Amino acid sequence: MDTVIDFINVNRDRYLDELKALLAIPSISALPQHAADVKRCAEWCGDEMRRIGLQNVRLIDTPGNPVVYGDWLGADGAPTILFYGHYDVQPVDPLELWESPPFDATIRDGEIYARGSADDKGQVFMHFKAIEAHLKQNGRLPVNIKIILEGEEEVGSAHLDDFIRAHKSELGANVVVISDSAMFDRGVPSICYGLRGLVYFQIDLRGSKTDLHSGSFGGAVANPAMVLAQVLAQMKDRGGRVKIPGFYDDVVPLTDEERKAWNTLPFNEKKYKKDFGVPKLFGESGYTTLERTWARPTFEINGLLSGFTGEGAKTVLPAVSMAKVSMRLVPNQSPDTIAKLFEEYLKKITPKTVELKVTRMHGGKPWMTAYDNPFVQAAGRAIEKGFGKAPVFTREGGSIPVVSTFQEELGLPSVLFGVGLPDENAHAPNEKLDVSNFHNGIIASAILYQEIASIAAPA
Amino acid sequence: MDTVIDFINVNRDRYLDELKALLAIPSISALPQHAADVKRCAEWCGDEMRRIGLQNVRLIDTPGNPVVYGDWLGADGAPTILFYGHYDVQPVDPLELWESPPFDATIRDGEIYARGSADDKGQVFMHFKAIEAHLKQNGRLPVNIKIILEGEEEVGSAHLDDFIRAHKSELGANVVVISDSAMFDRGVPSICYGLRGLVYFQIDLRGSKTDLHSGSFGGAVANPAMVLAQVLAQMKDRGGRVKIPGFYDDVVPLTDEERKAWNTLPFNEKKYKKDFGVPKLFGESGYTTLERTWARPTFEINGLLSGFTGEGAKTVLPAVSMAKVSMRLVPNQSPDTIAKLFEEYLKKITPKTVELKVTRMHGGKPWMTAYDNPFVQAAGRAIEKGFGKAPVFTREGGSIPVVSTFQEELGLPSVLFGVGLPDENAHAPNEKLDVSNFHNGIIASAILYQEIASIAAPA
Repeated sequence: MDTVIDFINVNRDRYLDELKALLAIPSISALPQHAADVKRCAEWCGDEMRRIGLQNVRLIDTPGNPVVYGDWLGADGAPTILFYGHYDVQPVDPLELWESPPFDATIRDGEIYARGSADDKGQVFMHFKAIEAHLKQNGRLPVNIKIILEGEEEVGSAHLDDFIRAHKSELGANVVVISDSAMFDRGVPSICYGLRGLVYFQIDLRGSKTDLHSGSFGGAVANPAMVLAQVLAQMKDRGGRVKIPGFYDDVVPLTDEERKAWNTLPFNEKKYKKDFGVPKLFGESGYTTLERTWARPTFEINGLLSGFTGEGAKTVLPAVSMAKVSMRLVPNQSPDTIAKLFEEYLKKITPKTVELKVTRMHGGKPWMTAYDNPFVQAAGRAIEKGFGKAPVFTREGGSIPVVSTFQEELGLPSVLFGVGLPDENAHAPNEKLDVSNFHNGIIASAILYQEIASIAAPA
Repeated sequence: MDTVIDFINVNRDRYLDELKALLAIPSISALPQHAADVKRCAEWCGDEMRRIGLQNVRLIDTPGNPVVYGDWLGADGAPTILFYGHYDVQPVDPLELWESPPFDATIRDGEIYARGSADDKGQVFMHFKAIEAHLKQNGRLPVNIKIILEGEEEVGSAHLDDFIRAHKSELGANVVVISDSAMFDRGVPSICYGLRGLVYFQIDLRGSKTDLHSGSFGGAVANPAMVLAQVLAQMKDRGGRVKIPGFYDDVVPLTDEERKAWNTLPFNEKKYKKDFGVPKLFGESGYTTLERTWARPTFEINGLLSGFTGEGAKTVLPAVSMAKVSMRLVPNQSPDTIAKLFEEYLKKITPKTVELKVTRMHGGKPWMTAYDNPFVQAAGRAIEKGFGKAPVFTREGGSIPVVSTFQEELGLPSVLFGVGLPDENAHAPNEKLDVSNFHNGIIASAILYQEIASIAAPA
């Protein structure tokens, strides 16, 4: 292993030059005028994967952008990693806020500034270089690896689930590795072992055929905007607890161990409040901010619309009102069960003075890996060796739907092995990746394969 | 008086032809491309006022459209009427819904269809013809009369209050007559003796500097859309009563006499529900629909906006939320007092988790004339003679701010002497005026002057 790490250390500068070439391709999946760039980026990745010694490299067509596939399966009897990443990037608007051109990677103050540096080209490239180091130095990898790179992650991964289902047998593995997330904080490497799920709804209320004059009718018919406010207000109590009956029934409680561990994390509520301009933090009684976002389900209003919303005053009694609402779920809440409980409660509390229409929209299951899972522990050891510091074990409040797909379709646990930083500007101007994290990430990735190899592969 | 009525009956057809010429002028004050038409209409009215024998006719400039003035002041010792009407009209969109061209008045099934037929050209013209009949037959009017016709009523009367204040001395009178409203129902002539007032606010809440990701932040910070819903829900109780402390303190209770009178009115709740597509009527417990809209104050949400309101789903935790709200007021509620009570209560119930901004917008005082007021009773007798049926005495849920201005600036009571119908489509396609109501309205107006003349003018 030492020779692999030596190789990585010696080639440090070359890696940056090569990464710059990948970052120079404006593979913006959201913009049709960049379709050729997206294709070119897929080809660049395929070429690079061949260069570093991967086999069976090919672009697999989907109804959208191709998936780049490659593998190395020469480690008989060793476990197999399925590595997932993406080669498409976010748009760059507003361009004028970039301090250096988004597709001309520039190093300043130890950071690589470019669109895609953190999300996700830099982190994909980190694994390319770890694989290259093993293959160049030892002629082999300690594990088997299959790589799939998606080209539609930034536009909702519309074709990924179908792709995984269609290639179930070829994608067989023991663990999924994804490097597309951020550490807890600068100097605080972390492993994420849980994500929240989601159910999302649109609520439409109608109180009359058309908008009415609030003078002539006000007081005599229910105002659907008021009914909506009353209904939504009944979704949470004053302590921030969701009032939908049965909502918490399947929630896996936080363990004392988790709470203790999270309480030691370097989290500064004052700074958090200030950074996001929040007058006063608020959430479910009895939980800390991290517990509230990582381990507790919640109910949010994502949008509200009714009546007159322009400049000035209009004395309209609106005919309709609309809300977009969503619930973040935690293990073991089921989106289907929660959706049913929500719809039942909503119907029960909505008065007969309005017509109610409720529409279920997208969603996803919550996800959690036991953090004593051997793969998670292997990732922890790799991080510790690569970064010289034991990682903290965290969860995330958001959702990464593909993680659930891997669990459900392939029965695979995922290891979220990310080296970005919370201020990496992933979807904003001046996206960046810390050069040291990139370099240590290559070493940690190389070690990760070794650590996973030490786990007996299931039959 | 009989000769005056005979004259009116003989000239019935001519009146319709003349009215068509007035209705042909597209004096749409809201549309700049019709500015010349608005001007032309003011001139047409001035010419017509000269034709029928009014004196001192002139267009008086304002910062907006001119006011047309004319008077006849030859009835020494008799009371003076200040007649107010408007010569501008609403836009006609959507044009395709008109069954005949909006500016080519067409008579179908006993109705004159045209923009402005009811609101307000037809009702203004009714008085022109009543004045003409008196002057042509008797060479004099039984009362003194001053006429002001506004050209900006359909765009908010921005310059009317200033005009009235600037011409206070010239506008001295004993009573204001306005014919710009509808009867209670077809065949049910009415006199309106009360209007609700209004206070209008915009509420803005901010929960964070920018929109946040509902996954990463949901549960840890207050959602300003939810806070808004909770705040608004606290404005009314389940019985439909406004919860602002002190809100009802100055409300003049309905008298037993009024309640009894209103209960005899031909009002059909079933038809009302069906006409307006209301699933189930709702309002303050203990009051009928008419009582709720005419005599009880209320709190309405006029608009709601927060977060994502487009197609589909976006998992945003909104930074801000906004509501437009208004309260309809009844005698003797004061807009200023209610505004203060509302702001105090709002500030008290809004949690410190959000920044609150509250902006007071337009409003107006409630208005009521005792219906045993001699002018109101005079109008009642005129209606009874003109329509062959005693009028019912009603109030309205809406507001006509100029009525309060006349009360406050000139100390004058108003008589709302309208002959429109509730289904006249005043601001909609196919606006219409009933031909019989127009004709009977001319007779009733002619009688009204006589009846008002019989009231001793105050010194």
